[in-house]
Amino acid sequence: MDGDEIIVRGYNLSSELIGKLGFTAMFLLDLDGVIPTPARVRVVDSILVALMEHGITPSTLAGRLVLDGAPEAAQGAVAAGLLATGSRFLGTSEEAARLLQGVVAAGTNLEEASRTAIRELIATDSRVPGLGHNLHKKTDPRVRALIGVAREEGQAGRHVEALGALESAAQSELGRPLLVNAAGAVGAILSDLGYRPEDVRSFALVARCAGLVAHIAEERREPMARSVWVGLQEHRDEN
Amino acid sequence: MDGDEIIVRGYNLSSELIGKLGFTAMFLLDLDGVIPTPARVRVVDSILVALMEHGITPSTLAGRLVLDGAPEAAQGAVAAGLLATGSRFLGTSEEAARLLQGVVAAGTNLEEASRTAIRELIATDSRVPGLGHNLHKKTDPRVRALIGVAREEGQAGRHVEALGALESAAQSELGRPLLVNAAGAVGAILSDLGYRPEDVRSFALVARCAGLVAHIAEERREPMARSVWVGLQEHRDEN
Amino acid sequence: MDGDEIIVRGYNLSSELIGKLGFTAMFLLDLDGVIPTPARVRVVDSILVALMEHGITPSTLAGRLVLDGAPEAAQGAVAAGLLATGSRFLGTSEEAARLLQGVVAAGTNLEEASRTAIRELIATDSRVPGLGHNLHKKTDPRVRALIGVAREEGQAGRHVEALGALESAAQSELGRPLLVNAAGAVGAILSDLGYRPEDVRSFALVARCAGLVAHIAEERREPMARSVWVGLQEHRDEN
Amino acid sequence: MDGDEIIVRGYNLSSELIGKLGFTAMFLLDLDGVIPTPARVRVVDSILVALMEHGITPSTLAGRLVLDGAPEAAQGAVAAGLLATGSRFLGTSEEAARLLQGVVAAGTNLEEASRTAIRELIATDSRVPGLGHNLHKKTDPRVRALIGVAREEGQAGRHVEALGALESAAQSELGRPLLVNAAGAVGAILSDLGYRPEDVRSFALVARCAGLVAHIAEERREPMARSVWVGLQEHRDEN
Repeated sequence: MDGDEIIVRGYNLSSELIGKLGFTAMFLLDLDGVIPTPARVRVVDSILVALMEHGITPSTLAGRLVLDGAPEAAQGAVAAGLLATGSRFLGTSEEAARLLQGVVAAGTNLEEASRTAIRELIATDSRVPGLGHNLHKKTDPRVRALIGVAREEGQAGRHVEALGALESAAQSELGRPLLVNAAGAVGAILSDLGYRPEDVRSFALVARCAGLVAHIAEERREPMARSVWVGLQEHRDEN
Repeated sequence: MDGDEIIVRGYNLSSELIGKLGFTAMFLLDLDGVIPTPARVRVVDSILVALMEHGITPSTLAGRLVLDGAPEAAQGAVAAGLLATGSRFLGTSEEAARLLQGVVAAGTNLEEASRTAIRELIATDSRVPGLGHNLHKKTDPRVRALIGVAREEGQAGRHVEALGALESAAQSELGRPLLVNAAGAVGAILSDLGYRPEDVRSFALVARCAGLVAHIAEERREPMARSVWVGLQEHRDEN
Repeated sequence: MDGDEIIVRGYNLSSELIGKLGFTAMFLLDLDGVIPTPARVRVVDSILVALMEHGITPSTLAGRLVLDGAPEAAQGAVAAGLLATGSRFLGTSEEAARLLQGVVAAGTNLEEASRTAIRELIATDSRVPGLGHNLHKKTDPRVRALIGVAREEGQAGRHVEALGALESAAQSELGRPLLVNAAGAVGAILSDLGYRPEDVRSFALVARCAGLVAHIAEERREPMARSVWVGLQEHRDEN
Repeated sequence: MDGDEIIVRGYNLSSELIGKLGFTAMFLLDLDGVIPTPARVRVVDSILVALMEHGITPSTLAGRLVLDGAPEAAQGAVAAGLLATGSRFLGTSEEAARLLQGVVAAGTNLEEASRTAIRELIATDSRVPGLGHNLHKKTDPRVRALIGVAREEGQAGRHVEALGALESAAQSELGRPLLVNAAGAVGAILSDLGYRPEDVRSFALVARCAGLVAHIAEERREPMARSVWVGLQEHRDEN
């Protein structure tokens, strides 16, 4: 802040940013310190759009319950919803990014590095972050869409390639297909954009915050949380 | 902290507090700056015990859901549960304390001050904090227990008296009984202990934190949150 | 979710939304149920950009401190930062929207309705939400920028007009200028977009979430929170 | 809840618990399902008392900042403070409990199991949870006090013994003393009481919640948070 003008990352907020940048470009300026290219904005937008809305999850239900208990403080409802987006929901894309960055760093032969990584995970009986899904038997259509945008914009690189190598290695090592999931695509693309694994969660938090805000607005208009907990309480009292 | 010794509110933690004070006495020392009398401790204990466990509420269910999403960070589950203890659940004892402190401050005639207060609430179509309950047709047994302890310990004073005056005034103004509820008893007793309305929530937060911790430990042993949100998600998908 | 396809608000996520919508359009689809016009997106973007980054505030400092204590759970740091965006920081635009919607609803004469509103606030010794600022003696440049974008896009209506009327009424009633501030502009523009006062906070929460994420990433790279609390602790120990 | 009576863990809240149990006994009833012995209550009290108040920490400062931003929602301030009590502050006693339970489970010879454990930690260049401290050159007086109470009450067992064996093993393996710290004492005693490592954090959360509530009440009476962030903001603007 300089006198009457607010300066953000070297730019005059009022004359250079408001009305000139969209949300995602401003977010990336704040995060990275430089105004992003339109290609980068479109790729990040595709990820934020993919992650925003997931229906009823622990996160959105927790947010709605907190609104029911404390309707005066909507920030508490959003905060509670974000708290539920921990390792079980957001951790996977972070872990996928870590795995892919390890594979890419391991050398020039992605196939070999992928096989080594898959074998290590099998040896420790771990799941492969970024592969596998409980619902989709075919390639998750979000994966195709996300990687498609990254390729169109010339932003897909070695990590997206490594994700494919990992899928092939998993198939040959396990003898059955283990398909790329959305968390894998997000982890690969953000890695190609230069983000570290721990930054990956940042994008998910921003997307989920927007989704939560929409759920909380819906809960205000059409409440459902109260019937959930009252129903459970009655059920418990009877038993 | 003084060299190797930790000093809390003027007392040596290791030689004067650990093993000498119980939780509630230590909490009151930290809050008020003086070691409380045993009478005061027993009265506060009765309130903390009454407020601790309420079964499935927005608070405990939100805490369990957050644990399901982020099992690595139990502090997030407790935090989310506390966020749900807002105006709808904890606010009432605070409002009851405010009302009772207003009645007591209004002068020596509690009956008249109570009638005035009740009339003002009726005029603005407001409910009377501290009176009324959706379940108990007879006096809530917690009310009798809490006020009983406060009287035994010589800690019940003008605010507990004002609560009775308020109940009588409500009956005569409304023409039907509106019984003292637990929030009213808590608000009156804490007022008699000298706390301001905004401090009342403090006691509820401490009690609820302990109850939440117990729910979260139970959720770890016998998970139930996942079945709740998965059931809702499937129901929503079908509709 | 329908088989392999995820449907959000009636649209196929993979084929109709990813790569097609930016963040803000997707957020407005989720919030309002319809894909917004480009004009609406640009106006909302201008507001989100204006609210995103405010340097060191209670919110960003709380987020950084939580990261220092719990680096394993970045969602906790963002949640804590959002919790600090309560009435003192986000409430003003909500209150400004409430005031302006009241003025517009009061009838066709905005000047008269504004004077009445200002007189009522003066009578109860209240500040006027949306007017006045502790720093800027001239019109806040963000106000000009925000209202400029809303006008360019044909989205400024009666509530922006009412904000001007309020400013004039304040000047004539108080005998000194009380200029429109950024919260007033945000409240007016979002009211013109059709949002209720309680929705206004939603936009601020999304913008602040993005700003918090940027602060938390910076704290990871260049920590400052530890020096703050250690400095305070040492200061307290000496005194 | 059965008609007018509230039943908690098989006990009638009003007639069997309120006025009969203190906070800690009620908490242990809720957590463990049985009313604890007085010995167990005194030992748990000693731990809660030791963990409650630590002056200015990331946790208490985050809580105070959130109160400054959202004074209307004290539950948010307490929640934010709890969020800061993550791995860096509360994790150590949990890890110490895990280590000690491993040593005890490893067999009858605690000395040998301790040496093995210490060597493994040295080999992976890890610190030893429960030993070492940056301030106290002599045994932390809290350790003596806590273990003293556990012994007096006949609650110290194999895990407290293992803690001593670990200290000796560290000295002989490292060639310099690495003294037991408070987290180690807490982890050992709670292990002797039968709690699993992940339960250890529960006790810390309850104690810290009480400490936070006291800080927040103090912040209301004597605010300090605003001067902290305003000072930092001005410092940043100048630089």
